[in-house]
Amino acid sequence: MGERAPPGTFHGGDLDAARNLFPNAPEPWLDLSTGINPVPYPLPTFEASAFQRLPSAFDLLALKRAAATAYGAPGPEHVAAAPGSQILIETLPRLRSASRVAVVEPTYAEHAMAWRRAGHAVETVAEVPTAERFDVVVVVSPNNPDGRIHAADVLVRSASTLAAKGGLLVVDEAFADLEDEGTAGAEFGPSAVRLRSFGKTYGLAGLRLGFALTEPALARRIEAALGPWAVSGPAIAAGLAALPDTAWLGEAAAARARDAARLDRMILRGGGRIVGGTVLFRTATFADGPSLFRRLGEAGIYVRRFPERPAQLRFGLPPDKATWCRLSRVLKPV
Amino acid sequence: MGERAPPGTFHGGDLDAARNLFPNAPEPWLDLSTGINPVPYPLPTFEASAFQRLPSAFDLLALKRAAATAYGAPGPEHVAAAPGSQILIETLPRLRSASRVAVVEPTYAEHAMAWRRAGHAVETVAEVPTAERFDVVVVVSPNNPDGRIHAADVLVRSASTLAAKGGLLVVDEAFADLEDEGTAGAEFGPSAVRLRSFGKTYGLAGLRLGFALTEPALARRIEAALGPWAVSGPAIAAGLAALPDTAWLGEAAAARARDAARLDRMILRGGGRIVGGTVLFRTATFADGPSLFRRLGEAGIYVRRFPERPAQLRFGLPPDKATWCRLSRVLKPV
Repeated sequence: MGERAPPGTFHGGDLDAARNLFPNAPEPWLDLSTGINPVPYPLPTFEASAFQRLPSAFDLLALKRAAATAYGAPGPEHVAAAPGSQILIETLPRLRSASRVAVVEPTYAEHAMAWRRAGHAVETVAEVPTAERFDVVVVVSPNNPDGRIHAADVLVRSASTLAAKGGLLVVDEAFADLEDEGTAGAEFGPSAVRLRSFGKTYGLAGLRLGFALTEPALARRIEAALGPWAVSGPAIAAGLAALPDTAWLGEAAAARARDAARLDRMILRGGGRIVGGTVLFRTATFADGPSLFRRLGEAGIYVRRFPERPAQLRFGLPPDKATWCRLSRVLKPV
Repeated sequence: MGERAPPGTFHGGDLDAARNLFPNAPEPWLDLSTGINPVPYPLPTFEASAFQRLPSAFDLLALKRAAATAYGAPGPEHVAAAPGSQILIETLPRLRSASRVAVVEPTYAEHAMAWRRAGHAVETVAEVPTAERFDVVVVVSPNNPDGRIHAADVLVRSASTLAAKGGLLVVDEAFADLEDEGTAGAEFGPSAVRLRSFGKTYGLAGLRLGFALTEPALARRIEAALGPWAVSGPAIAAGLAALPDTAWLGEAAAARARDAARLDRMILRGGGRIVGGTVLFRTATFADGPSLFRRLGEAGIYVRRFPERPAQLRFGLPPDKATWCRLSRVLKPV
């Protein structure tokens, strides 16, 4: 109705923005602009009390225990639960006095923005620095959008330099859960914080649930910054059901890996060159990225573009057979 | 199972803490320890996408428009939405450099704690100060736990002094929605922020939804601190359904006012002296408060006590006939 999205957003996931760009596209839109698992974990039957009562400290403790087990943290005291991992990205910079921060780029832009907003001196770097010059190092692994996995020994070395001076290594592992390799088992020591996204892995991004895994003192400071009851009752209930379900996770990882391989074939056939990605999204360059973005949009398919890299597009996974067909009609052989 | 609640919490709403205190009490517990509407707004039928997709910027804008109308703000740009008003209490202090803060007490303890945690110099005062000595004034109106309503003209005067020096008046109106009188219509000017609690009024505290109403620049800063997608899809859907429903709100206000009057009569009959309250809770003193707290607990009824005022207890409203009877059996005539 002439309503426009707030300016300055260049995230995926906002179909209304796509509708503004392509008002004549067929509905329903196919949203491939995010890296959210398109086959969600089945929602538990929520008790009415999950919506009505304040989430209890005991339920939250049970959730953190489940998260510690699922993510390989020593115990619930090493976990801070949050309404999504995004708010953790915003919160961490506010818990430190002015620091020299390195963000390994290209990556999810919110990291550098959040540290800058909180008044830190941010430098973007191409490789994980040995950290002599920095107090904080931020790295996304597997990286978004290129899927790059940073070697654990490099991160451990950086963490150890940072530890010696009270610094912090931030490892955003939002896309790690469904990957074979990664830094999941690595021990970064007490100066590191890892971020995990429940919503992406379990396809429940609307619920808002994410975790920081770190030493107990920092976990407590993060929780104090969010206050009690930051995580909703339905999010706790879904986390308690899904996090211990390793069978579902294993099957989801295998199924999404097959999807990702299929998507790669379709992209290659469509003239793309694969840059990388995770099993939840694939990033590719095209001879004419803007034109393909437009053709996709006109067909009601919304993918992620990158203002600073117009040749590059990122594709999430189609959720079902009909949408695979729909995508293949636009990504047809060149 | 021997599990204990995290230490240091003295909030209402945590029945597991009550179970720890009174392990032999009959189940189910009757939780009267909060000021949450016991008759919730009927949940809308949630679409699967509310759980699965990232909340869209357009839905959030619609929610803020509904909130602006419901709470009497000029427009959605004057509203910041958050996963509960508690996180706003935590966030506001982190948006200011070190300030001299006055908190009008006795009141909800989290305000002073949050400002202290963020490094501000906090003084507790008994009356709304004219603010000459302070940069920030925090007042809860209607107040928790005594229901005191601070006169709008006093708050306006304080806000105007604060405005002249870039200060901030925080008016926590968490319990204002269902009250006849209050500060809802008052104009505090650009240096004020009011907080509203969706969960308390609509009986959906588990959903986590609250609002800050303020000038657009501060609303934007609050939202930036929370990041995009801080409010869950189900919370947005419930807010969009409930906030425009003024008929429900009017009926709820009348019904809860009757409940509150009934609770007062029961308290008086049980030997209590009413201190005050809102239509969602009543606070009273008793000749032997700790003994009554114990008798209630042994009967499986959890009320709010106050460590620094042992004679005082706060009662939420029973949700139905059976629980009214259960309460009256303990609060029987002395």
